[in-house]
Amino acid sequence: MKVLFVLAHPEPQSLSASLCRVAVDALRAEGHETMVTDLYADGWKAVVDREDFPALAAETRLRVPAASGEAFASGTLTEDVASEQAKLRAADALILAFPLWWFSMPAILKGWIDRVYSHGFAYGVGEHSDRRWGDRYGEGMLAGKRAMLMVTSGGWETHYGPRGINGPIDDLLFPIQHGMLFYPGYEVLPPFVTYRADRLDAAGFDAAAERLEERMRTLFTTVPLPYRHQNGGDYLIPSMELQPSIEPGQAGFSVHLREPAGSGA
Amino acid sequence: MKVLFVLAHPEPQSLSASLCRVAVDALRAEGHETMVTDLYADGWKAVVDREDFPALAAETRLRVPAASGEAFASGTLTEDVASEQAKLRAADALILAFPLWWFSMPAILKGWIDRVYSHGFAYGVGEHSDRRWGDRYGEGMLAGKRAMLMVTSGGWETHYGPRGINGPIDDLLFPIQHGMLFYPGYEVLPPFVTYRADRLDAAGFDAAAERLEERMRTLFTTVPLPYRHQNGGDYLIPSMELQPSIEPGQAGFSVHLREPAGSGA
Repeated sequence: MKVLFVLAHPEPQSLSASLCRVAVDALRAEGHETMVTDLYADGWKAVVDREDFPALAAETRLRVPAASGEAFASGTLTEDVASEQAKLRAADALILAFPLWWFSMPAILKGWIDRVYSHGFAYGVGEHSDRRWGDRYGEGMLAGKRAMLMVTSGGWETHYGPRGINGPIDDLLFPIQHGMLFYPGYEVLPPFVTYRADRLDAAGFDAAAERLEERMRTLFTTVPLPYRHQNGGDYLIPSMELQPSIEPGQAGFSVHLREPAGSGA
Repeated sequence: MKVLFVLAHPEPQSLSASLCRVAVDALRAEGHETMVTDLYADGWKAVVDREDFPALAAETRLRVPAASGEAFASGTLTEDVASEQAKLRAADALILAFPLWWFSMPAILKGWIDRVYSHGFAYGVGEHSDRRWGDRYGEGMLAGKRAMLMVTSGGWETHYGPRGINGPIDDLLFPIQHGMLFYPGYEVLPPFVTYRADRLDAAGFDAAAERLEERMRTLFTTVPLPYRHQNGGDYLIPSMELQPSIEPGQAGFSVHLREPAGSGA
């Protein structure tokens, strides 16, 4: 199988980069192919702007979804974006490796999502009718593939627990896991998170590496998070609210899982 | 009073930019002073890298919190970052104006947070002991000031409702409102959200503008979201978990509000 890593850390000696190398080695040892997009090393352009749409006339107002969709359809996306889309199509699995900065991804990685996820590729795909609301949330261009986050955090694990002050890590990652990975079709695996990253000693690193190697060995067998598919009947169309009969009276991110996280599937 | 807007949209004719102008005019009409950081117009550098820490020796491993803290303490932050920090200190209120891209802020705005929120300024501030865990979550350098999000979304409001497929808008914004605004001390006002931004006609714009003008008139009187202060006794130290006696058995983002959102205060 082919696995694409997208790494977002400015320091080659960082924990994120080191764990990325551990994961690559573990996958190669199993006979898989790996590709790494190292955003900082590649000097990735982080911001969406007019330069992304060279075919857009100078006097035309930039509407990002429209411009992005036209560039995708006409093959005029910039080379860096087209190249990343080709990697996503080629890869059977995607792993985003990054430090948690301000409870989200570093800007350079957000900019990879903002630019590579063009209209017609990652959104605005498929039929919108009274039966379907596009190919998204379980369907889409990247359906049949797997994705996983590899996150390092300087904070303590309890601070990210169910009642921890930062909010539960699964909820903090929901906009990424559900909104950026499940949305264009990926099956999303439970995240690999390392806490107190700045205080990790050699023994701590070895333990994390071992845990990560096991996750790589099981990358294609681990049970994905059981997010509900949009067009499978669980949601009203077009309001896209969960059917009243499902988890009645409940609300929030957790209702979008077919069974509670961690209960197995 | 002084109000700082940070605007993150590449198109001057965008809804985000237009609403920003409406808000600025409304505040000036009330006698307030306004400042606007227009990230795209200013060519804001979005990514944290070694260039941000000119005093860091070339052979030194880049550890972002340490490098950022040293640059802040020694006055060697880059001019663009120092200038934004000065604006934040001067402003009584901060408004972040942006389109919701992939359920979060555009990369350029995340890069403003990543770079301007240096160690010693927005985190790593204050005493860590068995009584306090730093000046954060209700205390900190920006305490006594107010902050608010102005968000435009292409999606439908029901898709962001309590049981909508995208997840509730308040939960999607929690990492920003609680994690980026309340964390360094801001009182956070309910967000101003405009849905179906790409389909808004002239009457829709006028209605949104009117609603926004009212929010600007009440900017300094609106009741903030009742997030719990970290060092006020609600949390165990150092695990930073909510005391077992508070909202027993409950978990998730909502337990960090003193009373449910929307119930008044």
